[in-house]
Amino acid sequence: MLNKQQNILIIGAGLCGSLLALRLAQRGYNVTVYEMRPDLRKTDISAGRSINLAFSDRGNKGIKLVGLEDKVRPLCIPMNGRMLHDRDGKTVLSNYSGRAHEYINSISRGGLNALLLDEAEKHNNVTIHFNKKCKSVNFEKTTAYFIDTLDSTEFIEDADCIIATDGAGSALRQSYFLERKFLFSFSQEWLTHGYKELSILPEKNGGYKTYKNALHIWPRGDFMVIALPNLDGSFTVTLFLSYDEGEYNFNNLTTPEIVIEFFQKEFPDALELMPNLVEDFFENPTAPLGTVKCSPWHYKGNTLLMGDSAHAIVPFYGQGMNASFEDVVEFDAVLDTHEGDWETIFTEYEKRRKKDTDAIADLAIDNFHEMKDHVGQAIFQEKRKIEMALEKEFPEDYASKYSLVTFNEHIGYREAMLRGRAQDKAILNMLSDGVISADDNIKDILVKVKTETKAILEDDKIAGLH
Amino acid sequence: MLNKQQNILIIGAGLCGSLLALRLAQRGYNVTVYEMRPDLRKTDISAGRSINLAFSDRGNKGIKLVGLEDKVRPLCIPMNGRMLHDRDGKTVLSNYSGRAHEYINSISRGGLNALLLDEAEKHNNVTIHFNKKCKSVNFEKTTAYFIDTLDSTEFIEDADCIIATDGAGSALRQSYFLERKFLFSFSQEWLTHGYKELSILPEKNGGYKTYKNALHIWPRGDFMVIALPNLDGSFTVTLFLSYDEGEYNFNNLTTPEIVIEFFQKEFPDALELMPNLVEDFFENPTAPLGTVKCSPWHYKGNTLLMGDSAHAIVPFYGQGMNASFEDVVEFDAVLDTHEGDWETIFTEYEKRRKKDTDAIADLAIDNFHEMKDHVGQAIFQEKRKIEMALEKEFPEDYASKYSLVTFNEHIGYREAMLRGRAQDKAILNMLSDGVISADDNIKDILVKVKTETKAILEDDKIAGLH
Repeated sequence: MLNKQQNILIIGAGLCGSLLALRLAQRGYNVTVYEMRPDLRKTDISAGRSINLAFSDRGNKGIKLVGLEDKVRPLCIPMNGRMLHDRDGKTVLSNYSGRAHEYINSISRGGLNALLLDEAEKHNNVTIHFNKKCKSVNFEKTTAYFIDTLDSTEFIEDADCIIATDGAGSALRQSYFLERKFLFSFSQEWLTHGYKELSILPEKNGGYKTYKNALHIWPRGDFMVIALPNLDGSFTVTLFLSYDEGEYNFNNLTTPEIVIEFFQKEFPDALELMPNLVEDFFENPTAPLGTVKCSPWHYKGNTLLMGDSAHAIVPFYGQGMNASFEDVVEFDAVLDTHEGDWETIFTEYEKRRKKDTDAIADLAIDNFHEMKDHVGQAIFQEKRKIEMALEKEFPEDYASKYSLVTFNEHIGYREAMLRGRAQDKAILNMLSDGVISADDNIKDILVKVKTETKAILEDDKIAGLH
Repeated sequence: MLNKQQNILIIGAGLCGSLLALRLAQRGYNVTVYEMRPDLRKTDISAGRSINLAFSDRGNKGIKLVGLEDKVRPLCIPMNGRMLHDRDGKTVLSNYSGRAHEYINSISRGGLNALLLDEAEKHNNVTIHFNKKCKSVNFEKTTAYFIDTLDSTEFIEDADCIIATDGAGSALRQSYFLERKFLFSFSQEWLTHGYKELSILPEKNGGYKTYKNALHIWPRGDFMVIALPNLDGSFTVTLFLSYDEGEYNFNNLTTPEIVIEFFQKEFPDALELMPNLVEDFFENPTAPLGTVKCSPWHYKGNTLLMGDSAHAIVPFYGQGMNASFEDVVEFDAVLDTHEGDWETIFTEYEKRRKKDTDAIADLAIDNFHEMKDHVGQAIFQEKRKIEMALEKEFPEDYASKYSLVTFNEHIGYREAMLRGRAQDKAILNMLSDGVISADDNIKDILVKVKTETKAILEDDKIAGLH
């Protein structure tokens, strides 16, 4: 039944594609990867993409799977919490968890991707081609049509199966949509906000201009700035802002004066750290924030979408890369059971996985509102205080929604979402009704939160929700 | 400011397009309509489309707006409730409302459309062209590109603004999507079920073979059959069934024997009324069930999507046509305020309307599950019994979700959804917890349902839901 000499074509050598290539190589398949960009180990091609990313426990499952934990750790900068900056430049650090060993990491996209490419290429059964852009996929014939971006030659590649890890603008997904050969459910949803990358450069001595081990947030209700540390002492800064609503927006921030005015008014302490603001602002592109969901991901046993091509999400939960790496782990587990039968593998994989990637897409939208707005509200701050105390006092018994999503990698995103949302609802309502307060006995709070959360989940179930 | 001599181009002369054309003609605009099909008043082109539809209070607002109530009434067959048929052929009638004057109607799509076309054409400022298929719209230039389906000639039409009422497969919506000139959020979601139309023919004397004034349902959990009466004594029957799941599905119902076996086992009383079943089954197409949402509906003041082109929904709430007619009413109200400024009109219209069409799309999916499954479950039947009693006893004070959606045309779909879902949740949970039962004093039930519904809405609000 099992034929390991099968040829697998992977479209896209980004984070998901290169991890997948490495894992399939380890399993003995013949793997050929086509990437539209130049080799990022030889060229700087970061423009327009996030330079660093949040890397956490779910992503680490994928890294463990391929045995690279020791090589990835040095690329990581731990971020223990959110450092919130108010308009006066006053800061407060809000830990991600009441458990000291739970934190997320800032990691360089390029550095991690280069490592995965290097490791994949150590296998004789892996070939990676760069500058080859996929234009379309014939999913009936299992062939992909490419154009060489350097010399514009065109060619068709055949394979036993094709896995597209070619990101939010996937060529395979586009072929599914445009060909109309089967019922393809598809959604693309854009936020009214876009984003622009800026930077806080290192001190002259290479040190960090602000606290290194945090994800910095300047929440302002309708917009926000965040910053993540890099190994070289810099921070990558991102401004999330409406295209056309509010006093200041991307459409009206058209002159250096108004950009400075905006930052002076809203982010004075950040402005002080960014003498390079105006240059960055007008050099860097403004990019949209979209969510993509679709189904089916596969066509028979011929083709499969994985990573962002199947489920692009907004960045606000720091789970984009982590979800894609978890895809590879889940796919690998299905391979263990059904190896040799691609159609069953693809079907089972989607059945197991889609409910979870749908959930993280929705959670990421939730967190957009939480980060830019809720973190600044009193009732949410009181909830957060209670949850930190619960996690510290009862590390085995309590996990906040954030912890369920980020640090409880043994449960799926969907379960994390349902439990986490019910818990949030329980705490917020009990706070609002005066049933609990942050000063109560912590054990009493735990019992009340657990009881109320269970009741909420039960009520939803009876009403046929979920 | 106001220039009534403006030329409005409407793409599609279906129910929405013909009502809109009539209304805009009444307001004095120059209206030109292009329809891809032949004139339905001269040709029978019903194949593949629902022959009859549910027409209720929201749709009637549109008919009142154009002054056609008296002409539409004779086309209607009142349906006072659902007649449920079990596997033994036993039937029970479940009224749509506890208020006697609240019912829905079965109406012929073709008959109603013909009336609207006739009425529109009575106006000198309306021209309707048939057999002209729109291929694409240049929304920057406000021009539409057509092909004549009879002689294949192609031509371009210019207008002051273009409104596309060209249904779920809208050419304008496709142009928005494919041109990528702005951020266009779009989703198409297919159910795993498809549908096929069948028929119960009239008695030889022209009489009805089963009860005339009901929407008949044969609910079977994973699939169902429904039937709506026609003026000629026939019923249009629709089978909703999975394409590929379950013992019987569209993919395996491939021979007359297996079709008969399926109906004999699941719908024996319907089979008796349908000696023509096998012929209908293999002659009529199987069609998919999809939901389309998108935004923005308009491009500047140039183009606008309306009706199914903006929000195609599944048929299970009987609200497709009603929602489209309500579109025209809402659009007309915005015209009253902003006439002369198309960009403001289109922007305001979408802002007012989209939350409601999103809601009816979701409600229609809810009702898919309710009709095929819940209506057969004890707890839902008890809820229904209580709600009928509440509506009868307190006609001014209580309306079920179904009544809110169908008969409370003064509130929007979204408000109906939020209140209706909370009410359902309250009743189901109180039934499940033994807090209420159908035998309790009805006044006590009303108080408890109202209190609990309010608490549910309040809790959701505090938790930041909705």
